[in-house]
Amino acid sequence: MLDFWDRLELTLIRQVTHLDYPCTLIIYVKAAYEIFKDAAIYYAKTTIPDTLESLDNLDYAVVPRENSIFGPVIETFDWLRSFEKGSIQGEIVLKIQHCLVVRKGMHLEDIECIMSHEQALGQCRKFIAKNLPNSAISKTTSTAAAAETVSRSTTLNVAAICSKVCVTMFEGLDLIKEGIQDEDSNYTRFFLVGKDSQHKLPTYPVHPTHALIRVTPTSLEMPVNLLALLKTIDVPIIRIDRRPSLSSLPFSDTYFLELNTSSDSPSWSQQVERTLWKIRDIGFSAEKIGTW
Amino acid sequence: MLDFWDRLELTLIRQVTHLDYPCTLIIYVKAAYEIFKDAAIYYAKTTIPDTLESLDNLDYAVVPRENSIFGPVIETFDWLRSFEKGSIQGEIVLKIQHCLVVRKGMHLEDIECIMSHEQALGQCRKFIAKNLPNSAISKTTSTAAAAETVSRSTTLNVAAICSKVCVTMFEGLDLIKEGIQDEDSNYTRFFLVGKDSQHKLPTYPVHPTHALIRVTPTSLEMPVNLLALLKTIDVPIIRIDRRPSLSSLPFSDTYFLELNTSSDSPSWSQQVERTLWKIRDIGFSAEKIGTW
Repeated sequence: MLDFWDRLELTLIRQVTHLDYPCTLIIYVKAAYEIFKDAAIYYAKTTIPDTLESLDNLDYAVVPRENSIFGPVIETFDWLRSFEKGSIQGEIVLKIQHCLVVRKGMHLEDIECIMSHEQALGQCRKFIAKNLPNSAISKTTSTAAAAETVSRSTTLNVAAICSKVCVTMFEGLDLIKEGIQDEDSNYTRFFLVGKDSQHKLPTYPVHPTHALIRVTPTSLEMPVNLLALLKTIDVPIIRIDRRPSLSSLPFSDTYFLELNTSSDSPSWSQQVERTLWKIRDIGFSAEKIGTW
Repeated sequence: MLDFWDRLELTLIRQVTHLDYPCTLIIYVKAAYEIFKDAAIYYAKTTIPDTLESLDNLDYAVVPRENSIFGPVIETFDWLRSFEKGSIQGEIVLKIQHCLVVRKGMHLEDIECIMSHEQALGQCRKFIAKNLPNSAISKTTSTAAAAETVSRSTTLNVAAICSKVCVTMFEGLDLIKEGIQDEDSNYTRFFLVGKDSQHKLPTYPVHPTHALIRVTPTSLEMPVNLLALLKTIDVPIIRIDRRPSLSSLPFSDTYFLELNTSSDSPSWSQQVERTLWKIRDIGFSAEKIGTW
């Protein structure tokens, strides 16, 4: 087992103790650490596409899939539209706590601009509307990038929405308020993405119970009736997501369907494969991009 | 006919000639003008929720529903989760041209920060990555709000992504580049939303061919299998969108299904009503929130 972990290289995560890396969504640290603990070497990337593209060289990536308040993470699904080589191998759910962070000495009433990743800004909409209705909003590539900008700022009364650990990562920061997310039950679900579908973690289930399939109409006639597609599927569907397809046809869509099973029957995987063939038979392209 | 138009009050749109209003997504002007021409009084709102909430007092609102590159507009769908009183009565599709706008005398190489609405930023991702990879990104409530900020800016080398008309609306602006959106085929689809379902525009079809229905599982058991829901529907489905539901249960979803018909048969509307009842029978809440 140790051998396996020893050769594992995990992309995406800013190592909290290595501040020479550019920063990334610090929340990923917790998600990846839940899975790999001290067994992985963590690499830093600043954006979700960068993270996923580093699967060309590294073994695993951890990216956010959806938040319980703000919904699906667009960058992740947009990248999955052209995902060919690898495979989603797992998921993990974490409780999210957002904090309002400023430069030391600043107060709530001094804040003129709030910076954060759009997901965090979306999850704190009510707090912002109530407490900082006149502040400008600035979107950053990550919550930690916002904290770093605030830490370096000398002239502006900017605040960051980020996780608590940022206060210890960057100099000169004060935590004004903890738990500012709109809902106390704020969770994010993360995908564990592997560079290929051959190498599986020791924790990978013998009989997977989840599959993510990607379906795109090949018809040039618009609009496409999805009813024929949905009627061919005979395994449970638990989530459906839509993104603009990569075709040049405006308003053509790619759908991501999450299939599951309540049993751990070995025949379920075969059922999923048969479903893919049936979908292709009626004129859609269909690929399985993960099972876990 | 003139009587009808005379009493029409349309929310949302900043009147281009009335600069005393706070600004809103200027692109809406074109969409609303396509429908109402000079027959409506236009009111300005700064955000999509503000626009839709003004239906309490005004007759119609025009809001973006989805863009062909960047996908569904989250603010619109999130608001539609609790939409009770009114009804979507139409849609309109416009071609989108984004421009890069700066203060007079600035050049591309001076730009340190790019401001715009997240949809516009998303639609120009490739242009930004190629031409302004080191610029900070700042999210504004509208593309016109970005142009206004740039126009007032005195110290920062900021640029706005906005529509061409902003250069004539705000002082001291120069257009650096036109058509910077990633895809030349960049379209946005807008909803025309009425304050109730009784008053219809003269252009409203005798036999509508589109319906938007909102479906939320009432079961507390998770995950919910959507297969039973989808199998009850026997009219064509052309789009499916998912947003987090307003329930307190994390990761429970509300789905928006767009139904349509290729014929203009009067019985289709009855079929849609029957479909809603069948969906309710299997334990989902289901409402029709528009037909057009």
